[in-house]
Amino acid sequence: MSLICVLRRAALLFGSQEIASYKSDGEILRYSYTEFYERVKRLGSALRGLGVGEADVVGTLAWNTHRHLELYYAVPCMGAVLHTLNLRLSKREIGYILNHADDKIVFVDEDQYAAFAELGRHDLRCVIMGEDQTEHRSGVASYEKLLENGQQGFEFPDSLDENAPAFLLYTSGTTGPPKGVIHSHRSVFIAGLALCLPQFFNLTDRDVVLLQVPLFHAVGWFLPFSSMIAGAKIVLPGPHPTPQRLAELIEGERVTVTAGAPTVWINFLNHLNKTRNYDISSLKRVIVGGASLTPAILNEFEELGVEVVHAWGMTEGPAAVVNWLKRDIDGNEEEVRRVKLKQGIPVPGIEVKVVDQEGNELPRDGKSVGELLFRGAWVIDSYFKDPERTAQSFCGGWLRTGDAATIDEKGYIQIVDRYKDLIRSGGEWISSVDLENLIMSHPAVLEAAVVGVPHEVWQERPLAFVVLKGDYVNKIGKAEIIDHLRERVAKWQLPDEIIFVESIPKTGTGKFDKKALREMYKNYFIERSTKSQQP
Amino acid sequence: MSLICVLRRAALLFGSQEIASYKSDGEILRYSYTEFYERVKRLGSALRGLGVGEADVVGTLAWNTHRHLELYYAVPCMGAVLHTLNLRLSKREIGYILNHADDKIVFVDEDQYAAFAELGRHDLRCVIMGEDQTEHRSGVASYEKLLENGQQGFEFPDSLDENAPAFLLYTSGTTGPPKGVIHSHRSVFIAGLALCLPQFFNLTDRDVVLLQVPLFHAVGWFLPFSSMIAGAKIVLPGPHPTPQRLAELIEGERVTVTAGAPTVWINFLNHLNKTRNYDISSLKRVIVGGASLTPAILNEFEELGVEVVHAWGMTEGPAAVVNWLKRDIDGNEEEVRRVKLKQGIPVPGIEVKVVDQEGNELPRDGKSVGELLFRGAWVIDSYFKDPERTAQSFCGGWLRTGDAATIDEKGYIQIVDRYKDLIRSGGEWISSVDLENLIMSHPAVLEAAVVGVPHEVWQERPLAFVVLKGDYVNKIGKAEIIDHLRERVAKWQLPDEIIFVESIPKTGTGKFDKKALREMYKNYFIERSTKSQQP
Repeated sequence: MSLICVLRRAALLFGSQEIASYKSDGEILRYSYTEFYERVKRLGSALRGLGVGEADVVGTLAWNTHRHLELYYAVPCMGAVLHTLNLRLSKREIGYILNHADDKIVFVDEDQYAAFAELGRHDLRCVIMGEDQTEHRSGVASYEKLLENGQQGFEFPDSLDENAPAFLLYTSGTTGPPKGVIHSHRSVFIAGLALCLPQFFNLTDRDVVLLQVPLFHAVGWFLPFSSMIAGAKIVLPGPHPTPQRLAELIEGERVTVTAGAPTVWINFLNHLNKTRNYDISSLKRVIVGGASLTPAILNEFEELGVEVVHAWGMTEGPAAVVNWLKRDIDGNEEEVRRVKLKQGIPVPGIEVKVVDQEGNELPRDGKSVGELLFRGAWVIDSYFKDPERTAQSFCGGWLRTGDAATIDEKGYIQIVDRYKDLIRSGGEWISSVDLENLIMSHPAVLEAAVVGVPHEVWQERPLAFVVLKGDYVNKIGKAEIIDHLRERVAKWQLPDEIIFVESIPKTGTGKFDKKALREMYKNYFIERSTKSQQP
Repeated sequence: MSLICVLRRAALLFGSQEIASYKSDGEILRYSYTEFYERVKRLGSALRGLGVGEADVVGTLAWNTHRHLELYYAVPCMGAVLHTLNLRLSKREIGYILNHADDKIVFVDEDQYAAFAELGRHDLRCVIMGEDQTEHRSGVASYEKLLENGQQGFEFPDSLDENAPAFLLYTSGTTGPPKGVIHSHRSVFIAGLALCLPQFFNLTDRDVVLLQVPLFHAVGWFLPFSSMIAGAKIVLPGPHPTPQRLAELIEGERVTVTAGAPTVWINFLNHLNKTRNYDISSLKRVIVGGASLTPAILNEFEELGVEVVHAWGMTEGPAAVVNWLKRDIDGNEEEVRRVKLKQGIPVPGIEVKVVDQEGNELPRDGKSVGELLFRGAWVIDSYFKDPERTAQSFCGGWLRTGDAATIDEKGYIQIVDRYKDLIRSGGEWISSVDLENLIMSHPAVLEAAVVGVPHEVWQERPLAFVVLKGDYVNKIGKAEIIDHLRERVAKWQLPDEIIFVESIPKTGTGKFDKKALREMYKNYFIERSTKSQQP
């Protein structure tokens, strides 16, 4: 079950299938699986020529391009480990990760080279990926030149152990420095296979898959492998993807399936609503994960005739839970909706449970909130070179997710919140995610984040941050938002304040940076109460 | 990836799903996945009570019933090995296999008990499976009594190694005694997952699967596991299944998917044509394997609106190749037909090649005939306790199938014949399978087998055995069959003689017993030529 088999089978069976990649010059490069395979083999031989050996770590700092996809196969297939660096991380974080992972060489997109050079890691060999085919700056190779020098008849070793490490990723550490996660060939193959199932991506070689999920996030949710297992056409959105580019690619390439985080789709749908001149009728299914699916996204896609599938996973075990309507969901429209907004049920090969603080399993009643634990065929069982946090995060073979969740009678998991984002108000819990989704269901709201902020009386109280859509700025105030919520939540759950902002700070993985918000506003209520007590 | 996870996930997510099992009394037993799980756990505890421990071999001599399905899960999940004895084998063969496998206990269907008793294996503990719930004959337990005594709260061990043996099967030895094949939990899980893919069984929990493939054949082609991975309704046809029963179950249970060997479907379609009073409109897809799909089966099912999918595998690696129309098959109807009759392309996780007698890989040109070799995630790499035949059958990790095959440019495999069934006539090869399919495409023909028989001049010449449909007996002769063939094959490939018979001898796995035919008729041409030389 090594990735060499996936690659070879794809070339043998689907040789004429197309890969389309948006380039920095605005053109779309097109080539076949056969040509891809030839280039991947040449790249393998070139890597060997550069002295990359088994289990060596090869870094990338790159967007979703055909070159990045070539590295996705070439590096693991020659027995080395692909380390996809998140290009949205800070200089400090990238520096830490490069040291911890011990990269031998880094492949950097043209537009990322300046940032990479700033790291001052002159000891690291660097290859620049771009359209320029000549030898690059002194001491820095160009990818296309490297490939040109690669050997034509190179073959990957047939003897690779399926348990060999294939990918190395780092989770953006919300506590302490980033943690390293390794996925083996075997993990990637099984997950890639499971994602092709009818209820998940339902992939065949008649599909056109837009690889929107950044290749530097959680092995791109395994879609680069599912696509080639199914023999689907692959579309890569290139550097700095925008909602406009996604819409153009979906229309132009007749994309049938794609996936991504809620923020991507909020901006995409907003762009679509503004312009209203794209034909996205080819699009059948969008998988939404990385954060909770909002009702607004669900509604708007369904109005466009696109099926929305909610999914959940972590870097430690991506694409582990997926939402589809089982035959025992035969309720009315409202129930169907409620189920669709849950994260879903475990994919075959994955097991989940919810436990209390003592580790006792809680009933599957849809009410008991506990920490979500999971394990399975593509869930790691330790962190890379980090025995201390391995010990903290695993419990009898189960990975502690840090998510507060319920599981209902029918097996649907609902993430209530990150444990640390739950708001403790007067002995009760308030879900920040629930409030956010409700606020975002207001037609004037683009994005909303809610955090718990210390409060003298209630321990914590919710504070909401709202970004309005362009047309509504200065036209909508606190009253409208609170009124909108009042019909939907208990009075004591209403945010004490609505703060209108131009944007909400995000982490390197595109999630709301609630840690930063909490830090910035930690004295908000305390200062107010002090003021109000002044004579 | 142990079967415990499959079982537990099925019970947790699809607890209300139904299993329907045809009983020897003609009634249909119905229960839910939840009840199935409870019974399987009780069975596990009862097995432990009987002293069955890890890696012990538990035999079955049974039809496709809910009890056999319970053993399919209970035995592997407690760490023991399920050994499914083929009840169509001879007393001598079963005796050999019981000794070689070293069974500790055998579960026997009521109607098989007499045959089992004749073996005289009084040392073997025996459990009888039937509707009788009382203690059975002296010294022989009854299955239902055993279950009644099983412990309610029993849980399967959580620590089972995925590489632990789960199933032990024997291939009907065409040379020498039967060979033992072991499939691990891991093999079964991955194969079970792969069979759910859109292009294979395309299974979801809205499907109703008729488990027609005998559970004593090649792990029932993994369908018992695919069904529960998908959460589908399961229908078991019970003891001595007949075409009538299959038709009734498909109609009554609204079966959507099933699978089986060509002979099963020939008889089924024949029954349907005779009676014409079944509503099988629920049936979407039939997977045909075990022997080559015939044009007649394809035509008749397609006329009924049922999709036919050709598949190929061996006991050593069941369900390894499946036929679906890739997007690059855009030819006319005739090309589509020609492709559909091929065996198909390798399932993800499986690799195939065709080699010449020196082991060199042959081109994928659809013409070069060589021996088919395969390997992959659920293909064994050795025979059980048989180093000699392991050495003969494996070549650099690849299993030699003994099948003569071609692979075309698009990756489709076509089995031309068993190597030993190819007919050598005057330095040319004639495919017995081709001739059989052509003869069976004649509307009067129910079944046909062709073998090569020694010939003084031509080395071998084809001899055809034909079973006519009831209405045509004594109305159709050699001339009609030869005329039918004459338009379709070269003159030198025409059978020298057509022998009309009432039935064709079959092996324990339901295939034409060509070895027996060759043996019975080995002097056919020699005697004729001697006679004709007599004065």
